[in-house]
Amino acid sequence: MKHMYQAQYGRYVGMVEETIAALLPQTQEDCPKMGGVIPAHLCETMRYSLLAGGKRVRPVLLLAACEMLGGDVEEARTAAAALEMIHTYSLIHDDLPGMDDDDYRRGRLTNHKVYGVGHAILAGDALLNYAYECMLQNALAHPEHLEGHVMAMNAIAGRAGVSGMIAGQSLDLLSEHMEPDADRLAYIHAHKTADLLTAPLLAAAYIAGADEEDFRALTRFGMCVGLAFQIDDDLLDVQGDAQQMGKQTGMDAQRGKMTWPALVGVEASREKSAYLWDQAEDALARFGESAWFMRAYAEKLRMRKK
Amino acid sequence: MKHMYQAQYGRYVGMVEETIAALLPQTQEDCPKMGGVIPAHLCETMRYSLLAGGKRVRPVLLLAACEMLGGDVEEARTAAAALEMIHTYSLIHDDLPGMDDDDYRRGRLTNHKVYGVGHAILAGDALLNYAYECMLQNALAHPEHLEGHVMAMNAIAGRAGVSGMIAGQSLDLLSEHMEPDADRLAYIHAHKTADLLTAPLLAAAYIAGADEEDFRALTRFGMCVGLAFQIDDDLLDVQGDAQQMGKQTGMDAQRGKMTWPALVGVEASREKSAYLWDQAEDALARFGESAWFMRAYAEKLRMRKK
Repeated sequence: MKHMYQAQYGRYVGMVEETIAALLPQTQEDCPKMGGVIPAHLCETMRYSLLAGGKRVRPVLLLAACEMLGGDVEEARTAAAALEMIHTYSLIHDDLPGMDDDDYRRGRLTNHKVYGVGHAILAGDALLNYAYECMLQNALAHPEHLEGHVMAMNAIAGRAGVSGMIAGQSLDLLSEHMEPDADRLAYIHAHKTADLLTAPLLAAAYIAGADEEDFRALTRFGMCVGLAFQIDDDLLDVQGDAQQMGKQTGMDAQRGKMTWPALVGVEASREKSAYLWDQAEDALARFGESAWFMRAYAEKLRMRKK
Repeated sequence: MKHMYQAQYGRYVGMVEETIAALLPQTQEDCPKMGGVIPAHLCETMRYSLLAGGKRVRPVLLLAACEMLGGDVEEARTAAAALEMIHTYSLIHDDLPGMDDDDYRRGRLTNHKVYGVGHAILAGDALLNYAYECMLQNALAHPEHLEGHVMAMNAIAGRAGVSGMIAGQSLDLLSEHMEPDADRLAYIHAHKTADLLTAPLLAAAYIAGADEEDFRALTRFGMCVGLAFQIDDDLLDVQGDAQQMGKQTGMDAQRGKMTWPALVGVEASREKSAYLWDQAEDALARFGESAWFMRAYAEKLRMRKK
């Protein structure tokens, strides 16, 4: 079982890396003569962050959900890569001065520390726009499933956008140094984190042609995984801070950000996370044996260390 | 004729304003309970720049091209508003520190001067993503013309993106304080400016179902208008600088940006602009009388003062 899981996981990640490399190959020309070729410097700034060793959680969820539902994983590759582009653009912009102002991510300098703020803003814009450009071209290449692809893009746009991830980021930024508040925090986590983990599941469901009950179950699974994921992140931060500062604290002091540990304490946050992971597993029940990989992958995410 | 032009222009601008207002109404809730509702502060930051008195050049071109080609202007409204969102996001991000670092635009404080850099970055991201979200929903609302709408979106994504507007912005930023170079400058203007003026024409052509010759003529018209537009902008800057500084100069000294006046001088730039506007009118010949508004609108753009 462990061997099967590793093989399948490797297959999915391999597909993602291959698709990303094909959609965003290195280019050499400063001012390309041919349409469709990306100028060398812009391409480099995009590749720097897109190929920075991310765990590819969202694309793996998309490919795994697609196969779980009996869909053709070949048709879903582009959407998987596009979701990673959207996730990556949000990280580049999050790291900027005026946002989190971070110098390092995943042990490497952040995009703006290498290329400057202006080029980092453009690299983010470019990844967001290119995500749609790639998905639109993929949709046009599958005219027999055009509507499913458009609905998948629409699900992604909705969860990435003004009432999804960006809504969560906006409220998160607005709430810095505010007193923790359960409604506000629930909104931030549902949208900033959980929406972009639900998006790949719904996109896969549209591409695979799932039924209404499947959508309900996948939405519940994505929401539970997303919220648990964010609480775990906050808990890992608290542990990190506690180790660094030699004391246990419920406040993310450095950032002034609202977190579950700050609101309800570390112990209650751990319980909430455990409950959500259990609920996520529950939501997969209707998919039976075909959910074997998804179940194992959720378990891995549950056990992750930063 | 002048009266007819004014009436038609007013009708197009009215449609654009109405569509934008309908797609982005003011909201009141900080953490909306209902899906699809935009949090109040994020919505305000988007509306601040989108409703800042722009001339709506790109949406007017889209609606006018659609009617010129015999298409249904009602189906094209959303794409027109979406193009204005894309144009507006690019201005918000262009004005940021690290890019042009401007405090004022159109006589009002820039987005980041009012809401801070973080929220301005998000407002731009939000407008870009929302443009696609609105177009995707409009496409799904017209299943009988789904492919045309997807092709229109694809044309917009291509010209707004990594080998279009963003490519031009990236090279522009990279070329600051460099010696002027004709190839580089031609690339910057074709992509930074002309691509987003060609996008509405091609999107209209896909929505209206135009033929190959129409596409060729519209591409030529858009490219000529776009390049002329940018040269005129540079010339207006030179005049402005000359008036302010009491001397005539071919360099945009404040920005260190590459411009036609800096490369070939003011007189040759004026000639190039005149030639391009004439070529633009030529390109409309095949549309005969149905191009009456487009012809008059191009003439207005040619005569504009900043």
